[in-house]
Amino acid sequence: MVDIATRVWNHKWKIDPIVRSLIDTDFYKLLMCQSVFRNKPDTQVTFSLINRSTHIPLADLIDEGELREQLDHIRSLSLSRGESTWLRGNTFYGKRQMFRPDFMEWFEGLRLPPYNLERKGDQYELTFEGTWPEVMLWEIPALAVLMELRGRAVLDGMDRFELQVLYARAMTRVWEKIEALREIPKLSIADFGTRRRHSYLWQDWCVQAMREGLGDAFTGTSNCKIAMTREMEAIGTNAHELPMVYAALALDDDALARAPYDVLSDWHDEHEGNLRIILPDTYGTKGFLDSAPDWLAGWTGIRVDSGDPAQAAETAIDWWTERGEDPKTKRVIFSDGLDVDKIRDLHARFSSRVNVSFGWGTLLTNDFRGLVPNDALAPFSLVCKAVAANGRPTVKLSDNPNKAMGPAEEIKRYKRVFGVGEQTVQEVVV
Amino acid sequence: MVDIATRVWNHKWKIDPIVRSLIDTDFYKLLMCQSVFRNKPDTQVTFSLINRSTHIPLADLIDEGELREQLDHIRSLSLSRGESTWLRGNTFYGKRQMFRPDFMEWFEGLRLPPYNLERKGDQYELTFEGTWPEVMLWEIPALAVLMELRGRAVLDGMDRFELQVLYARAMTRVWEKIEALREIPKLSIADFGTRRRHSYLWQDWCVQAMREGLGDAFTGTSNCKIAMTREMEAIGTNAHELPMVYAALALDDDALARAPYDVLSDWHDEHEGNLRIILPDTYGTKGFLDSAPDWLAGWTGIRVDSGDPAQAAETAIDWWTERGEDPKTKRVIFSDGLDVDKIRDLHARFSSRVNVSFGWGTLLTNDFRGLVPNDALAPFSLVCKAVAANGRPTVKLSDNPNKAMGPAEEIKRYKRVFGVGEQTVQEVVV
Repeated sequence: MVDIATRVWNHKWKIDPIVRSLIDTDFYKLLMCQSVFRNKPDTQVTFSLINRSTHIPLADLIDEGELREQLDHIRSLSLSRGESTWLRGNTFYGKRQMFRPDFMEWFEGLRLPPYNLERKGDQYELTFEGTWPEVMLWEIPALAVLMELRGRAVLDGMDRFELQVLYARAMTRVWEKIEALREIPKLSIADFGTRRRHSYLWQDWCVQAMREGLGDAFTGTSNCKIAMTREMEAIGTNAHELPMVYAALALDDDALARAPYDVLSDWHDEHEGNLRIILPDTYGTKGFLDSAPDWLAGWTGIRVDSGDPAQAAETAIDWWTERGEDPKTKRVIFSDGLDVDKIRDLHARFSSRVNVSFGWGTLLTNDFRGLVPNDALAPFSLVCKAVAANGRPTVKLSDNPNKAMGPAEEIKRYKRVFGVGEQTVQEVVV
Repeated sequence: MVDIATRVWNHKWKIDPIVRSLIDTDFYKLLMCQSVFRNKPDTQVTFSLINRSTHIPLADLIDEGELREQLDHIRSLSLSRGESTWLRGNTFYGKRQMFRPDFMEWFEGLRLPPYNLERKGDQYELTFEGTWPEVMLWEIPALAVLMELRGRAVLDGMDRFELQVLYARAMTRVWEKIEALREIPKLSIADFGTRRRHSYLWQDWCVQAMREGLGDAFTGTSNCKIAMTREMEAIGTNAHELPMVYAALALDDDALARAPYDVLSDWHDEHEGNLRIILPDTYGTKGFLDSAPDWLAGWTGIRVDSGDPAQAAETAIDWWTERGEDPKTKRVIFSDGLDVDKIRDLHARFSSRVNVSFGWGTLLTNDFRGLVPNDALAPFSLVCKAVAANGRPTVKLSDNPNKAMGPAEEIKRYKRVFGVGEQTVQEVVV
C-alpha cells in the first residue's frame, strides 16, 4: 500500500534539502563554538569557500539558483527541541552538561547569518561575514551542500538501475574496507566524514555499516545529528580555525608566537581527558612542540592532520619522551587522507608504542572513485576556512606546503616567527 | 511516515509466501498444459523432485514444516481475474487468443492437486500424482519453493548491513554481466531463470535490469507473472516432458520410435512461426534429426539444452542444409548452463550463420556464487520431472549422460530404439 499522505506531503517540498538540521555538523564545531562564544564572542570573521581542486569547475556543474535555494534553506533552520534536549542532556566524552546553559540559550536562538555568493569564472566565491560564533557554523553545511550538489548534477543523467548499481558498488566497496579493518586487532576508529560526504543518507549508511561491521572498534561519528539519531558517541575536539584566528588577532610577532599556546590554554581551562588533544601542525608541528610549555606535554594526545603522518607521530613520541612523559599513556589520532592501507600501516607501526585512533573522513563517506564515467564523482579538496579576523588576514602553514593559505607576505612572516624551514610537499587528494 | 495499516496487515501473514500466483511460472508450461489438455487430458502422471546435487542436504537445510506451509499456500492459489484477463487478452508471439476458451475455463477453476512429502535421509522425496494437465503445473513452483527456502535458511543468520551488501554484490555482478552483454551486436536474449531463481523479487529485479541495460536486445521473460506486471513479452515453447510422457505411453518399440515425432505433430497442428522450435535432445539430437520427417525441417528453429552446444548447433545446421533448408532463415536457441562467456562465444561462432537467441537461466537469476561462506548460496541442480505416465516409467537420455534419467533397463531399451551410441559426459552445474 502506498501511503498517499506521504506522497502528497513529499510533493509539497520546493526542494530536497541537503542539510536539514543545525546539528548536521561536526561535533568539534560545537565544542569550538562554545569556546569562542566564551572567549572571543565579538570577533568579526570572514569565512570563505576554497576549492583546492581547481580542475573541478563548480560553477559549471552546479546551478546558482539551486545553490542559493539550499543555502537559503540552511538559513531557515533552527535548533529543534529534541536536538536541544540531546545537547543538554547527553553525555559527551563521559561528561554531562558539556554545553553550558548560556551557550545553549544562545544556540537555541541562532539562525545562520547571510552569505555572499558570486560566480568567478568557473568557480563560486562563497563567503560568510559576521561574529565568529555565528559564522563558523556555516563551514560544514556549506561544504556538504557544495559536495552534494555536484554529486546530484552527475547523478541527474543516470537511469534507475544504473543508479541502484552505482550505490551497490559503493556499498560493496565500503563493506570490503570494513572487512579489511576487522582484521586489525584493537582498532579504534571514528567517522570524520561529514564535510566531504557524498550525502547525508550515504554518511548515515556508512556509519551504521561501520557499527555493524566493526562493533566496539568503531568509536562513533563526528556528525552530531547521526550520533543523536543512531545513539552513538559524538567525536571530535578542535581544529585549525582556533589558532588561525587567535594568530590573526595578535598585534605583534611576540603575541603571534604565543597565540597557538593561548588557544590551548583557554581549551585547558574548559576541557580535560580525551578532549585535551593537541592539533600541532597549524604553523609546523616540530617548532610548535619544541616551543610548547610543559603543561601541554601533560595533555592526552595529539592529532596528526597534515604532512607525513608517521613522521609526525615519531616527532610526538620523541617530544613526549623528552618531556618525561610515557608515550604509552598518550594517544595519537590520525585524520588526514586515510584509507584502509594507510590505517593498517600506521596501526602496525604505532599501536604498540602509543594509543592509536583514526578519524576516517572522505574515503569513508565519499569513495565513489572510478564508479562513473570520467570519474565525475571522485571526491575533491574543498575547504571552508576563516580567511580574516577583525580585518586581518589569517594564515595556515601546516606540515604540507600544498595545504598552506594566506597572503604571501604574511606566510613569510609566520614562517619566520614559527621557525618553519624546508617542508615536504604532499599531494592533497581529499 | 510509516503506513500503520500496511504494517499491521503484514503482521497478519502467517508466512511470507514464496509463490503468490499460479502464473508465477514459465510460459511454456502453460503452452504445454493447453496442448496436453487438448491431446492427453486423462493421462495419469507422477512428477518427482530430483536433487542432482546430492551434496546439498536439502532436508537438513529446510524445515519440513516451513516447506509444507509453502506448498499448502500454493494449493490455495487460483487464477485471479486480472491474470485470466491477461492470458485471454494478451498477444503472445504475435498471436491473439493463444489460450482457447475451454482451456481458460478449466484453468480458472484449477487448484493444484495434493503433494506427497517424505524425508529420506538428508533429502526430501516430493512427488505429485494425478492427471497430467494438473500435476505438470507443480514443477516450477515446487522448484522455486525449494530453491528459495534453502536460500532463506542461509540468509537467516546474517545481519542487516551484511544482507544489504550481499545484495549489493549480487546486483553489481548482474549489472557487470549486462554491461558485457551490451557489447555484443544484435544480441537476442531472454530470461529463462524462474525455476532456479534466488527469489521472485530477485528475478523481477534481474529482469528489469536487463530491460534497462539491454533495451531491445532483451526479448522478454519466461515468467508469466513478471511478463504481465512489467508489460513484457512472455517467452518459451516446449520442454522434455512432452516427448518423455508420449514415449512412456508407447506400447511397443515402433510406437516408442515414433513418439517424439507424434508430439511435434500435435504441436505442429497448434502452433506456427517462432513457436515451432524443436527440442531434439530428449533421446539424442543426432538420431532424432536423422530420422525426422521432412516437415520438421520446415520448422523455425531448434533449442539446444544439453551436450556440447556448439556441436549441437553444427549438427542442426548440417541437418537443415541436407534437407534443403537455408540455415540463415532458421533460429538456434541456446538455453543450457549459460553465462556471459559462453553467450559471447556461441554468438561469435554462429550469429552470421543462423539466427541466434539465448534463454538465460540460473546464472542470471541465481548467481550468488562465492558471496557467502562455504558458498552456501551457490545454485545447484534441482529438477522436477515426470517419472511415470499411466504407471509406466519415463526415460530421458539427453546429449549428456549426466542428465539421463529412468530405470537402467529402460534406458538401455531407449538407447537401442533411438540408436544412441557413445556420449560425452558434461558436468552439470545448474
